[in-house]
Amino acid sequence: MPAKNGKQFVDRINLAKPSVWFRGEQIDGRISDHSAFRGLMSTQAELYDMQVQPDYQDRLTYVSPTTGDPVGLSFMQPKTKEDLEKRRQMMMLWGEKHHGLLGRSPDYMNTGLMAFYTAAELLGEKEPRFADHLRKYYEYCRENDISLSHAFVQPHASRYDELLEDGSIESCAAQIVEENKDGIVVSGAFLLATQGVTTDEILVYPPASSYMLEEDNPRTFAFAVPNNLPGIRWICRESLSAGESAYDYPLSSRFDEMDTLVLFDHVLVPWERVFVLGSDRLSMRLFSESGFHTHCAHQVLCRYISKMEFTLGIILYMAESLDRGSLPATVEKVSEVIVHLETLKSLLLASEAGAAPDRFGSMLPDRKPLWTANVIFPKIYPRMMEMIQILGASGIIMIPSELDFNGEAKLDMDKYLRGSGVDAFSKTALFRLAWDLSSSSFGGRQTLYERFFFGDSSVVVSRLYQSYTDKEIYIGKVKAFLGQKDE
Amino acid sequence: MPAKNGKQFVDRINLAKPSVWFRGEQIDGRISDHSAFRGLMSTQAELYDMQVQPDYQDRLTYVSPTTGDPVGLSFMQPKTKEDLEKRRQMMMLWGEKHHGLLGRSPDYMNTGLMAFYTAAELLGEKEPRFADHLRKYYEYCRENDISLSHAFVQPHASRYDELLEDGSIESCAAQIVEENKDGIVVSGAFLLATQGVTTDEILVYPPASSYMLEEDNPRTFAFAVPNNLPGIRWICRESLSAGESAYDYPLSSRFDEMDTLVLFDHVLVPWERVFVLGSDRLSMRLFSESGFHTHCAHQVLCRYISKMEFTLGIILYMAESLDRGSLPATVEKVSEVIVHLETLKSLLLASEAGAAPDRFGSMLPDRKPLWTANVIFPKIYPRMMEMIQILGASGIIMIPSELDFNGEAKLDMDKYLRGSGVDAFSKTALFRLAWDLSSSSFGGRQTLYERFFFGDSSVVVSRLYQSYTDKEIYIGKVKAFLGQKDE
Amino acid sequence: MPAKNGKQFVDRINLAKPSVWFRGEQIDGRISDHSAFRGLMSTQAELYDMQVQPDYQDRLTYVSPTTGDPVGLSFMQPKTKEDLEKRRQMMMLWGEKHHGLLGRSPDYMNTGLMAFYTAAELLGEKEPRFADHLRKYYEYCRENDISLSHAFVQPHASRYDELLEDGSIESCAAQIVEENKDGIVVSGAFLLATQGVTTDEILVYPPASSYMLEEDNPRTFAFAVPNNLPGIRWICRESLSAGESAYDYPLSSRFDEMDTLVLFDHVLVPWERVFVLGSDRLSMRLFSESGFHTHCAHQVLCRYISKMEFTLGIILYMAESLDRGSLPATVEKVSEVIVHLETLKSLLLASEAGAAPDRFGSMLPDRKPLWTANVIFPKIYPRMMEMIQILGASGIIMIPSELDFNGEAKLDMDKYLRGSGVDAFSKTALFRLAWDLSSSSFGGRQTLYERFFFGDSSVVVSRLYQSYTDKEIYIGKVKAFLGQKDE
Amino acid sequence: MPAKNGKQFVDRINLAKPSVWFRGEQIDGRISDHSAFRGLMSTQAELYDMQVQPDYQDRLTYVSPTTGDPVGLSFMQPKTKEDLEKRRQMMMLWGEKHHGLLGRSPDYMNTGLMAFYTAAELLGEKEPRFADHLRKYYEYCRENDISLSHAFVQPHASRYDELLEDGSIESCAAQIVEENKDGIVVSGAFLLATQGVTTDEILVYPPASSYMLEEDNPRTFAFAVPNNLPGIRWICRESLSAGESAYDYPLSSRFDEMDTLVLFDHVLVPWERVFVLGSDRLSMRLFSESGFHTHCAHQVLCRYISKMEFTLGIILYMAESLDRGSLPATVEKVSEVIVHLETLKSLLLASEAGAAPDRFGSMLPDRKPLWTANVIFPKIYPRMMEMIQILGASGIIMIPSELDFNGEAKLDMDKYLRGSGVDAFSKTALFRLAWDLSSSSFGGRQTLYERFFFGDSSVVVSRLYQSYTDKEIYIGKVKAFLGQKDE
Repeated sequence: MPAKNGKQFVDRINLAKPSVWFRGEQIDGRISDHSAFRGLMSTQAELYDMQVQPDYQDRLTYVSPTTGDPVGLSFMQPKTKEDLEKRRQMMMLWGEKHHGLLGRSPDYMNTGLMAFYTAAELLGEKEPRFADHLRKYYEYCRENDISLSHAFVQPHASRYDELLEDGSIESCAAQIVEENKDGIVVSGAFLLATQGVTTDEILVYPPASSYMLEEDNPRTFAFAVPNNLPGIRWICRESLSAGESAYDYPLSSRFDEMDTLVLFDHVLVPWERVFVLGSDRLSMRLFSESGFHTHCAHQVLCRYISKMEFTLGIILYMAESLDRGSLPATVEKVSEVIVHLETLKSLLLASEAGAAPDRFGSMLPDRKPLWTANVIFPKIYPRMMEMIQILGASGIIMIPSELDFNGEAKLDMDKYLRGSGVDAFSKTALFRLAWDLSSSSFGGRQTLYERFFFGDSSVVVSRLYQSYTDKEIYIGKVKAFLGQKDE
Repeated sequence: MPAKNGKQFVDRINLAKPSVWFRGEQIDGRISDHSAFRGLMSTQAELYDMQVQPDYQDRLTYVSPTTGDPVGLSFMQPKTKEDLEKRRQMMMLWGEKHHGLLGRSPDYMNTGLMAFYTAAELLGEKEPRFADHLRKYYEYCRENDISLSHAFVQPHASRYDELLEDGSIESCAAQIVEENKDGIVVSGAFLLATQGVTTDEILVYPPASSYMLEEDNPRTFAFAVPNNLPGIRWICRESLSAGESAYDYPLSSRFDEMDTLVLFDHVLVPWERVFVLGSDRLSMRLFSESGFHTHCAHQVLCRYISKMEFTLGIILYMAESLDRGSLPATVEKVSEVIVHLETLKSLLLASEAGAAPDRFGSMLPDRKPLWTANVIFPKIYPRMMEMIQILGASGIIMIPSELDFNGEAKLDMDKYLRGSGVDAFSKTALFRLAWDLSSSSFGGRQTLYERFFFGDSSVVVSRLYQSYTDKEIYIGKVKAFLGQKDE
Repeated sequence: MPAKNGKQFVDRINLAKPSVWFRGEQIDGRISDHSAFRGLMSTQAELYDMQVQPDYQDRLTYVSPTTGDPVGLSFMQPKTKEDLEKRRQMMMLWGEKHHGLLGRSPDYMNTGLMAFYTAAELLGEKEPRFADHLRKYYEYCRENDISLSHAFVQPHASRYDELLEDGSIESCAAQIVEENKDGIVVSGAFLLATQGVTTDEILVYPPASSYMLEEDNPRTFAFAVPNNLPGIRWICRESLSAGESAYDYPLSSRFDEMDTLVLFDHVLVPWERVFVLGSDRLSMRLFSESGFHTHCAHQVLCRYISKMEFTLGIILYMAESLDRGSLPATVEKVSEVIVHLETLKSLLLASEAGAAPDRFGSMLPDRKPLWTANVIFPKIYPRMMEMIQILGASGIIMIPSELDFNGEAKLDMDKYLRGSGVDAFSKTALFRLAWDLSSSSFGGRQTLYERFFFGDSSVVVSRLYQSYTDKEIYIGKVKAFLGQKDE
Repeated sequence: MPAKNGKQFVDRINLAKPSVWFRGEQIDGRISDHSAFRGLMSTQAELYDMQVQPDYQDRLTYVSPTTGDPVGLSFMQPKTKEDLEKRRQMMMLWGEKHHGLLGRSPDYMNTGLMAFYTAAELLGEKEPRFADHLRKYYEYCRENDISLSHAFVQPHASRYDELLEDGSIESCAAQIVEENKDGIVVSGAFLLATQGVTTDEILVYPPASSYMLEEDNPRTFAFAVPNNLPGIRWICRESLSAGESAYDYPLSSRFDEMDTLVLFDHVLVPWERVFVLGSDRLSMRLFSESGFHTHCAHQVLCRYISKMEFTLGIILYMAESLDRGSLPATVEKVSEVIVHLETLKSLLLASEAGAAPDRFGSMLPDRKPLWTANVIFPKIYPRMMEMIQILGASGIIMIPSELDFNGEAKLDMDKYLRGSGVDAFSKTALFRLAWDLSSSSFGGRQTLYERFFFGDSSVVVSRLYQSYTDKEIYIGKVKAFLGQKDE
């Protein structure tokens, strides 16, 4: 199947019937019918439908080098700056559709897998077959428009051993409990597989530490499996979808990407799905040399921009409806959003302008502006939400529902809740949107999620710092100024 | 009835049967049975029950000067520093019970009414009967433990007139539509009467501008009425109580104070409940000369401290359960909370140490430290919530429910989700609490509410600045240093 | 004279002999010999010398369209993106030479004059001769490499009138006291003509308000005059050049741009030097339609980048010499500087990528990223200075002098003050540089100057906000999301 | 000699003739005549003169328990809350005299020595004579009004060893090179002995780490010596006193406390001046158990308050002179200063209200509010300086000198530089003061100094965190709320 449409996406997920647990009970029927998934899946189906719509198909797909079919453009390895531009346009198209609210818009994992694929040869240094596995898996995903979640963080408890009563020590860290002719058998738990249940497969790998390890950990592994393999169990968090009404819950009813705890209990991972085994250093090199974080950051920056544009629009519309657009305090706040938006846009542009080919033939965007964006967005996003709260004030607290506009009080509502140049029903819709983004449980999770998208701040900052190769240049300029020799 | 207990509180609210609208429908049965009010009312009943418990009664009540009955201590006018201390102990007792989560803990409005009462003579300058009304009303409330909400903000739409098709102009600002022998007839709408439905009466008055008006507005009024008078209709916002489980929703299940839009449609307010009529200046003077904002700020600062202690406890417990208490990054964050807590405590202490009698015989706390607290809390509270998010990270996102611990996955949950020195069930309870405070819809509303508790930041700041009488002293010191004459 | 060299620059300044007052006394001899000007002039001479050096000449000059001589490239009107790039390279060359420390590097005013010149036809709307004056003046400056200061802010006292004892009212606002056949006679005072004494001429014009005036002020004027016209008197501020030693005062000994109060006492401005007379609206339009703030911001952003690179180099070198480069606290601080540098670079790139021709044939850089830079730099620069202080700590306080390394204590100094991988003399040089930038009187003035370079923050923010033409687009996206019609 | 006067202070310093090096040369004549010390010493003399003035003597001295003479009150061990109040009044008196600008106002070290003295018995645990030395030294200082500097930080270079060419390893860490019957012979260097040359003696001790060492360092020592012992050499930093004129340099001409690098080259410290030898743990315990940082923080908080009052006065006076007191932007800024001042005052009050006796009979202020002040002041002080810059803007840059007001331009100066309600000469004096505090080299050093007064931020924060004994209480409250058992 080439680039799929919405129905195909939904059908495949429903067919898989993974073992999903929600509030203590296993989900029985079709996932797409469940209140915790329905809205999200319908939103994602819209994205996939765009792939087959004449208006968008050209921009969202490209011709498969193996089958000639149109396949998802985010799978495409960029080889020229024009390719990067095409990729960006594709990602902005989807980003503008979901307004940056989907951290796991399919192009994110597609991009990550593409990055790994370009550097597959590295894996062959250990055993040639691993490189082969990865290449074939990438092709399989591309040609079948397989969607992915991923997992690499283990629960906190995995970090310490437990002393059992009989004196033995038990670790709950994920591990290979058996290795046989069919594959490896894995047990353990991983945190926060976002959309694990609404994607086809899951990619599991070790965390991308920023330093090279001294010795390989023989227990290291990386693999990908369908989300319904025997022994895999998905535990859902609290659903943040507050209801069906798109008026009352404009975001949570459509964009709540379920996060899951995924439990592996003696799961047999077939050999052809194993990419790394017992080699931390190779795994680390795969990350750094494939440009994984760079390619992904290119996609993410497109998403950030969509979200910032949406936020700016909300804030401007609020100010207008409150007739406050010209107050200095508003100008100051709105300008802060503009500043952030223009900064993000400039960083994106700079990342492409400074792109250069890597040794795998990829046109790699300049990581300096991209990783700069990764440092600043987690700080400015919460600040933007604060702006919405400060501007909206009681208008964000006192939010009546759609039903109130149908009830007996309708006339009063219309009279008392209207805004400047906007009727009460529309203004309330706007403020419910502002609430859902800035102050609802859905909004709370979005803020938290953005804070940690690429790791906690020390990780993100260190990634930028360690890779910043111009450090010596700037020290050299100072030495020159001081008339000191640069050794 | 003297100081009431929980059952009396609930019964009276249920008996009143005000006209309450929730999601477009009128609430029919007992308010205390409704999911949007049940938890809150039960929490408040616990507060009232303390008033009759031997352990607490002495600290929560005092002997009524008219009846000799024990009545709520927050009604007591402080005449000495010891009185202030008693009031503070009373307010801390309740504050520690609700952890500062109830902005409309009954002592807040009791205190406000008490402040007005002490300066009632002012109202007599216009017409002696108004002073009398206020004094009697205060006494009525104190002796019957009447609980109050209040309202003074009108919807944004009240600020501009609408040009009707027939050329006439309509304003939807609240107004007296008739004045007759029984009282005044009022129409209009007021925003954000928090707990309007779960208190007995509502006090309505003009906003306390910080400047004196040139001319009186003949339409000005202030009054108090039961919440069930004919013509009063209450429109509820979205309920933020996410469910019944105290494990899953430790805060929203118990502390969601409903905010309402209250509509007055030709409501007859009897004369004996009218306190101000057509005199903005008297109204303003009532605020400033009665020390309303000072007395209230004393109560609020107690609440702030309770909330900050609770927040500090949560953060410390999280750090402990993650085994991170000794990391410099944690030390820095926790110390920020400690700094804020110690600051708030010192400001409270200073407000009492610097108290002085006013001309109405009240021992008025020093407003300088109190209003300082009012400036800083709206800034530090959101920052504390940010701390919780940063410290909790994925632990606040991946929150399974109570039911998950009863289900088939219980053993895995216990194994993988345990913390350092704490079992999985307890740790999850803690992180759900952290979530509910920092990131749920309930938490979002708390943050917003605290931002604007005493008005937006420019109002709060201006209140401090305008009243800061030491300005000339400090200018004088600089002039002295420079050898300049101080005129 | 085509593009001048350093000696020509110095000679012309010395020859002019303007009336300069320093600490209550008139400067008598050659300005270039005076301790308050010597270092700066020598630094500027180095810039001008580059114009005639084979290594740089091609990049710093272009062929005059009228004479064929090489003239300063910053005078060149950009007509293509390549022209913008050439201008940027020119400005970066000088910027890297003075490390962004010269706010009045000659290319700044050259650029401003060029911008005005491109829109000269506007001035002709009132009287054709004014357009002509401006064009000729521009050409005169370009062909003779005239350097300029400018002034538009009047002292605070100009804003209020003084009631004299005889009952008459006196204003000290600048004004035309006479208009005769030779020109206009001007009296008044202007603030902060930076480098007024070390440039050839001064350009005086009304402040560029961001709003259009209702009516023209008949007293408005704009003109340019040599700095030595009779009646002009320059009052210098405190000199911040702390001494001659480039080791002890690496910055203040070379980069202190003297600010002056310039007094006009019945100064006759010849007609051919008058550009605006009695027409505020034309003056405002000249600013906005010529792209003055945009062209200038392009130059200034180059300067910002040079300064940020220098700052980053200093901070990195300090961290290295203290052996702290790998501490998380250092990584965090240094990364903040990197983030700012990468942001500024991306904004510059974006301004050129988004350039578009204006109606005067200029290729106008995109003002959105440029004015974004104007908003952020005044905030980040002081923060960077804070970083230097925090990183340097006592090393910035305990700064011995060059002479101490020649004295009896030399051996001890060498032993105790050495750094990690750097000898004591070099390390002390570095920390004196850090001191001079972040903590000396020179540094204090730099920080202040950067805070207000393009006006106070409300002006800069408003300039961005008012001109941001995409506002409706973003509101439209939100309305589309909400299914609301966009009118 | 009991509490000394100014002349006695100056004479003793001059008589000592320590070996002081300034800009590579040894100071020859009287220190009080040297431009780098004259202003400061004259300011200090004024402080000492207050000790013998009838207006102040009672508040600045107390009756010596041994001689009956009046001795400096800051030497007094507080045994009651009234003593604390007396100490505070004494410290505020001096603080208001020097406006908090003297970090080494004599009461600081007097207080530190007093704290050590109260716990002298600890030192006896190792050898009884050390306790005795300390007690006698304290008494000697108190009875003779000896002023002290102190040093405990060694240069960065002391942390690493140097490999010499002959293969041996050399450390430049301070060390005892010999121990003989007369005392210990010490070599090494210490940083930043502020006022080392303008006090009588120097106290040298190991840094107060916040953790207990595993093993004692046999090289540890603590002692006090006169500043003129053979082998001691003082290297001065740059002098920041910019000139003699109190008009032009209102602060630097009077308050520049010289910082020094003090070199010990085989200095013989007599046994009776040795307090600690080879016992890190005792030294650490002396700090923590004597309440050194608590007693000192009490003095420092008084100083902070004086400085904040002075800053508030400057800012208010500036706003007034610019006629901007009523602008919202000004109200916001000024209120921030008020908030900080009120906070500091409340913390001081709370520290005394919460004081409790320690086991050495001292009434120890509550360290929680004091150490809170230590965390916040280094952050707010630089922010206050920023406020001054933002409010003052060009008025802080364009500062003419006293001489300009005597020169030919006087009339113009008077006309153009006057402020709102203040003449030009007085306004300029004010803005020069604002400059000297916020933006001069003197101001830069003050800002840096305050940032690090009690150590870098991680040290100060950790001191608060580690000592915060209420942590378990707050965790307990959360556990109680969650129904969890507190073990």
